[in-house]
Amino acid sequence: MRVAAIQIACQEGPEGNLEKAAEWVAKAADQGAQVICLPELFRSHYFCQSEDASLFDLAESVPGPTTERLGAVAKEKGVVVLAPVFERRAPGIYHNALALLNERGEMAGLYRKMHIPDDPGFYEKFYFTPGDLGFKAFDTLFGRIGTLICWDQWYPEGARLTALQGAAIIFYPTAIGWHPQEKAEHGAAQHDAWRTVQRGHAIANGVYVAAVNRIGFEPAPDGDGGIEFWGRSFIADPQGVILAEASTNQEEILVADVDLRHLESIRRNWPFLRDRRIDAYGGIEQRWL
Amino acid sequence: MRVAAIQIACQEGPEGNLEKAAEWVAKAADQGAQVICLPELFRSHYFCQSEDASLFDLAESVPGPTTERLGAVAKEKGVVVLAPVFERRAPGIYHNALALLNERGEMAGLYRKMHIPDDPGFYEKFYFTPGDLGFKAFDTLFGRIGTLICWDQWYPEGARLTALQGAAIIFYPTAIGWHPQEKAEHGAAQHDAWRTVQRGHAIANGVYVAAVNRIGFEPAPDGDGGIEFWGRSFIADPQGVILAEASTNQEEILVADVDLRHLESIRRNWPFLRDRRIDAYGGIEQRWL
Repeated sequence: MRVAAIQIACQEGPEGNLEKAAEWVAKAADQGAQVICLPELFRSHYFCQSEDASLFDLAESVPGPTTERLGAVAKEKGVVVLAPVFERRAPGIYHNALALLNERGEMAGLYRKMHIPDDPGFYEKFYFTPGDLGFKAFDTLFGRIGTLICWDQWYPEGARLTALQGAAIIFYPTAIGWHPQEKAEHGAAQHDAWRTVQRGHAIANGVYVAAVNRIGFEPAPDGDGGIEFWGRSFIADPQGVILAEASTNQEEILVADVDLRHLESIRRNWPFLRDRRIDAYGGIEQRWL
Repeated sequence: MRVAAIQIACQEGPEGNLEKAAEWVAKAADQGAQVICLPELFRSHYFCQSEDASLFDLAESVPGPTTERLGAVAKEKGVVVLAPVFERRAPGIYHNALALLNERGEMAGLYRKMHIPDDPGFYEKFYFTPGDLGFKAFDTLFGRIGTLICWDQWYPEGARLTALQGAAIIFYPTAIGWHPQEKAEHGAAQHDAWRTVQRGHAIANGVYVAAVNRIGFEPAPDGDGGIEFWGRSFIADPQGVILAEASTNQEEILVADVDLRHLESIRRNWPFLRDRRIDAYGGIEQRWL
């Protein structure tokens, strides 16, 4: 299974981004990629920098325009596309979601972001109802994959529950960046923690991990600051070894191979899944012990 | 709370190591350390390189000689000591355990290693009954701490369940090293994965982490190979930042401060514990989904 992470900048409005995404998916397919993932909420600027009820207009039905357009590319190129989408499920129920489009262009799966952040400049709890589909892995023509989204990447439980469903790789479409006023002091540690915790999921679970971020500076709607998306998309192997890593500021396609023999070799030599103490993990379902 | 990780080499037999450990604990206390952790099974060579029933003679009762000797140092210096011990609980029931000795020299807590490995040269399943005390955190005079042992360090569940009990720092006494014949090809990736997954636990849980390893080459009993313990003990902060890190081959005391204001600041700015989906984690108690 050859996978691709597409790291792009996103324009403010929705139309240009969809065409751009379609072009980049086609380009990745032409490079031999079979499962291609776009960044979180790629159809617009990251609108969660403010709480503005009119921005729910950016949401769309699923299936809908995004899955149709990218489904057409998936079918044309015979590839699987992971398409993040701002899902309008019902008036008042919106999700930060990801649609799986198979090589026939059909919508073959849906994941709804389970862990919803809410921090200054990342006001996602205003927009997104937490996912109610649970953690997911999907069979594709090319292999079994798992899907999580951005804030999920900080939760070992999400990675574990996805890996236990047999995913060989976990995709994390993402929109993460620096607040310019924090970057000098905290930027390096923030990026390193983000990369480290996801490499940790790869190691603990013996799975490949692909983090797919956007780039570019997007100003805050009130003109005060904004977010500098840090790019640095990467693909790691089941031992946490970085196979491919992007820059902080260039649009790029990362391509890597998911090798099931390598995955099995790692899990044979580091048999973590064998020794889990499933009799003693009940407290995980508590808030605090 | 000022903590110390004691990285030492261990001699083959038990007596010299106990006196040496007592000396190093005293030295760490003299450097201002308040909670001091020794490496896993420090009282002998790492005997699990072979399966030999006579080596159960190395086990001892708990409380017993190790807790008495180190309790005396703890009392003399007014410090807390985390003392790994090969526990003889009953004929046929032995544990890889850790005793908590408080500043009055009393045994104030016991943790029994929950995840037991078994790999070539690390035949622990022959010697150790898996722990039945669950995951633990303990109040001490200096702060609340958590204890896990070696192989536990690969399990996000262990770190999570320890952190959820309010530990500000998780100690991982360890005996991990390279097989000489693998070191050139795999050594760097093995060490990096070990360091990364534990830094990941620090990040995901907003806790300090201290990994306490031994150093030295210990030949296999059959004369064929052995283990080169890789040292590299470290202490990381709640963002995974390395505060102190030891060499691969020197006996050293690592000292660092656990700052509860810093811990709370990290958890306020990265509020991962707030958003856990405890309604959706039930599958963690399954072997495979």
